[in-house]
Amino acid sequence: MGKLFDVVLLFLILLSIVLVMLESVREIDAKYHEILYIGEWIITIFFTIEYVARIITVKKPRAYIFSFYGIIDFLSTIPLYLSFLFAGSSFLLSVRALRLLRVFRILKLARYIGEATKLRKALISSRAKILVFLFAVLVIAVIAGTLMYIIEGPENGFKSIPISVYWCIVTLTTVGFGDIAPVTPLGQLLATVIMILGYGIIAVPTGIVSAEYTKKMDQQDVLGENYIHVNTQACLHCGAQKHRDDAKYCHKCGEELNPKNHIET
Amino acid sequence: MGKLFDVVLLFLILLSIVLVMLESVREIDAKYHEILYIGEWIITIFFTIEYVARIITVKKPRAYIFSFYGIIDFLSTIPLYLSFLFAGSSFLLSVRALRLLRVFRILKLARYIGEATKLRKALISSRAKILVFLFAVLVIAVIAGTLMYIIEGPENGFKSIPISVYWCIVTLTTVGFGDIAPVTPLGQLLATVIMILGYGIIAVPTGIVSAEYTKKMDQQDVLGENYIHVNTQACLHCGAQKHRDDAKYCHKCGEELNPKNHIET
Amino acid sequence: MGKLFDVVLLFLILLSIVLVMLESVREIDAKYHEILYIGEWIITIFFTIEYVARIITVKKPRAYIFSFYGIIDFLSTIPLYLSFLFAGSSFLLSVRALRLLRVFRILKLARYIGEATKLRKALISSRAKILVFLFAVLVIAVIAGTLMYIIEGPENGFKSIPISVYWCIVTLTTVGFGDIAPVTPLGQLLATVIMILGYGIIAVPTGIVSAEYTKKMDQQDVLGENYIHVNTQACLHCGAQKHRDDAKYCHKCGEELNPKNHIET
Amino acid sequence: MGKLFDVVLLFLILLSIVLVMLESVREIDAKYHEILYIGEWIITIFFTIEYVARIITVKKPRAYIFSFYGIIDFLSTIPLYLSFLFAGSSFLLSVRALRLLRVFRILKLARYIGEATKLRKALISSRAKILVFLFAVLVIAVIAGTLMYIIEGPENGFKSIPISVYWCIVTLTTVGFGDIAPVTPLGQLLATVIMILGYGIIAVPTGIVSAEYTKKMDQQDVLGENYIHVNTQACLHCGAQKHRDDAKYCHKCGEELNPKNHIET
Repeated sequence: MGKLFDVVLLFLILLSIVLVMLESVREIDAKYHEILYIGEWIITIFFTIEYVARIITVKKPRAYIFSFYGIIDFLSTIPLYLSFLFAGSSFLLSVRALRLLRVFRILKLARYIGEATKLRKALISSRAKILVFLFAVLVIAVIAGTLMYIIEGPENGFKSIPISVYWCIVTLTTVGFGDIAPVTPLGQLLATVIMILGYGIIAVPTGIVSAEYTKKMDQQDVLGENYIHVNTQACLHCGAQKHRDDAKYCHKCGEELNPKNHIET
Repeated sequence: MGKLFDVVLLFLILLSIVLVMLESVREIDAKYHEILYIGEWIITIFFTIEYVARIITVKKPRAYIFSFYGIIDFLSTIPLYLSFLFAGSSFLLSVRALRLLRVFRILKLARYIGEATKLRKALISSRAKILVFLFAVLVIAVIAGTLMYIIEGPENGFKSIPISVYWCIVTLTTVGFGDIAPVTPLGQLLATVIMILGYGIIAVPTGIVSAEYTKKMDQQDVLGENYIHVNTQACLHCGAQKHRDDAKYCHKCGEELNPKNHIET
Repeated sequence: MGKLFDVVLLFLILLSIVLVMLESVREIDAKYHEILYIGEWIITIFFTIEYVARIITVKKPRAYIFSFYGIIDFLSTIPLYLSFLFAGSSFLLSVRALRLLRVFRILKLARYIGEATKLRKALISSRAKILVFLFAVLVIAVIAGTLMYIIEGPENGFKSIPISVYWCIVTLTTVGFGDIAPVTPLGQLLATVIMILGYGIIAVPTGIVSAEYTKKMDQQDVLGENYIHVNTQACLHCGAQKHRDDAKYCHKCGEELNPKNHIET
Repeated sequence: MGKLFDVVLLFLILLSIVLVMLESVREIDAKYHEILYIGEWIITIFFTIEYVARIITVKKPRAYIFSFYGIIDFLSTIPLYLSFLFAGSSFLLSVRALRLLRVFRILKLARYIGEATKLRKALISSRAKILVFLFAVLVIAVIAGTLMYIIEGPENGFKSIPISVYWCIVTLTTVGFGDIAPVTPLGQLLATVIMILGYGIIAVPTGIVSAEYTKKMDQQDVLGENYIHVNTQACLHCGAQKHRDDAKYCHKCGEELNPKNHIET
């Protein structure tokens, strides 16, 4: 029963996203406005029920209402109702925009995939490295962007430093829209350097992730036979530590490790 | 004999593809129409023979006829014959289009390469991870696309959410056609985030595939025939170690390795 | 106290960069010129104090003054003062440009991140390989660029060999601005080869970095404190193995491990 | 002496390339034509001497003359001399083009770098996999290109199948010039699939190269202590094989392995 509900909810979330998308396409909206409107109603009603049900069933209603999903659920449900109260077309548009928030409901789907959590963990564990990588990209972008601004200047599309920095990131990430492109030889030379840099930098996150994956590998595989776990107990006779877990005698002085267990040595 | 046929078939599949391609180039078609037409005839006849032969020889003709390749073979062979029955130029064009299906015959070539199967297996084994990766890309694209649509709007080329989502994937995959590009500062800022995200995401599939490859790399492959696992038991007579796991006698002094088998050492 | 200063300095460096950036945006500069001007003054004064303080406190003032950072600190601080001496607007522009050097101060931030040094080391250790990679990219770019120049020629945007080489690097690095694109079939064929080459080459730096990372992954890191290397020598008394490398006595029976030290066993 | 010559040769090869490049830039050629002309003369004379010297010194002159480098050396040296015989400007241009062949002389520099050979070996060893990868890319490009041609058609820039295939490779390799871009929704949907495919495929060569690098790692590292090299000699008594290289006795029957060395057992 609960599963069926989840599946229906899943389906409706996806449907609502498709509807919001299609409605944004002028041609489709013109043709099938009625169908979209009816679909909109069905979804709105369902989401309303779900929202109310959630508040009732949930242990801490307040916590939910003011949570990220709570606010999204609320804001993405009311528009249709508001559209009755206020018929101001100009106001309606901004209200309809709220429905786009429904898109964030997709994130709810994430919990349905086990792998996702693994992926998130992997990313979190390599958080520090990724930050350094981002920092490097930004520093290079700021410096190179400033230089490009000086070299190329506003007349060649590099209107301001922020835009030059934006262009640098477009280039470093090898996206290269081409809406802005260097014209002067010196600018093209610097662009070449930036490109090769970006080309090289791309190796870094890849290497990091690969490394993370390798780490995840079972330790024992890495160790092989000649490594063994040692504990931190100390020999009462000579104080030596790091004995094998199954050690009976101190590897240093030959004394027994746990005299208590024996009546006589 | 069968091999020769395969090679000829292979050659003709490639030739037919080249012919279909060249015919689509207006200039070439205008010049060498006769040659292309004759080539077309030779191939059509050959494929007809092959098709008929296949139906006759194959155990389950019906299974073949209604199989993926069976339908392609049929549809990609008839056009020339149909072009006699119906001389309606408008109809002919749509008929000729069918010949493009021949392109799918290339897939037949795949079976000639051993590595291909390995590759397929590797991809299948990392199916789950790839799906998560695709899901992540799509979710990011949908959310970012919606935001870009709100920020930039139709006036800057982001005509609808689907197009914005399309643009996001173009950007996330670092393709960056540049037919659509953000103009507003806020849009460019979001674009920057999307780009760096895409730049980072690219590391994930790479890491996955690398991991798969490493897994596939069986130790024995690395070792080769001349390496063998040895255990760490010692000969109680001479203390020599690293005997084969199946060793009964010490390789150094020739004594038996298991004292149990002896009354006295 | 010293830390507070560092934090403030850090904040001001970032602020100064933001200010220089915003000032380069015509609209913003027109509106908030006063605020930017005041901010400029605060920063200039602070940097002046820092610069003077540094000279006084530093052991070798001369060394600092003529160091990379020393020169940047000086040049990026004086502009505002110079703007009083010389009020020549044309000259002022070039003077203001000096302030952009402040961007290089970001590099000072690098020292605040531990990971950064690791990254630098990794890059340095794979220096030789990266050079080969760069050499390969450049050679391919020069040869392919020359060929593209011959094939496409100036009329299709490939004005000169340097520009063709620039285009080749744009293509090899998969940036693809699209400001220049091949038009002739032969040019597009060569472009295809270049693209696939570039697509393949990208694997090389990634592989190198991954390898470096793996190397850097010291076993002990993986093991942690509780693992220790054990050798395969056996106790001649009880035959127990896997003793610590520095073990003098058998951890099982307490007998000494080296018979030499004994007259009789 | 020989080394000095090599260095000078190296320098002149690079210089000649720079000269050919600069000469292709109209502005520079107009200004510094004399300097370029003189430089051209110096290089031509030097290369002539080198070419003659090579023929004299080399063991098999004929082999060299008709070798790849031999032909390049010859063709890239004569133009200037020919320019005297034939003063036909139109003919001269095509003759000058020959000088561009000098670019291939860069490849000679490759032999000065040790790493290069390693890289080449790595590429050769993963030849088969790379071919499969290329085959996959081409098949996808041909099929997707044909579909794009049907969907978008000549009116949207996809003039012919070859051009559509070219566009597909531009997209698969994430270069994305943007000179051609899908306009129809269906075309953009297919483009999205192609992009994500290309984005995923990029992982394959990377994984392959990484795997190759890992293989290159010293075997012993992979093996660890518990693996040991065994030879293929057989015990004359029981025929058992795979004995340790230092084995004196058969691990199976305890007989000596080389009776010859002994008078009595």
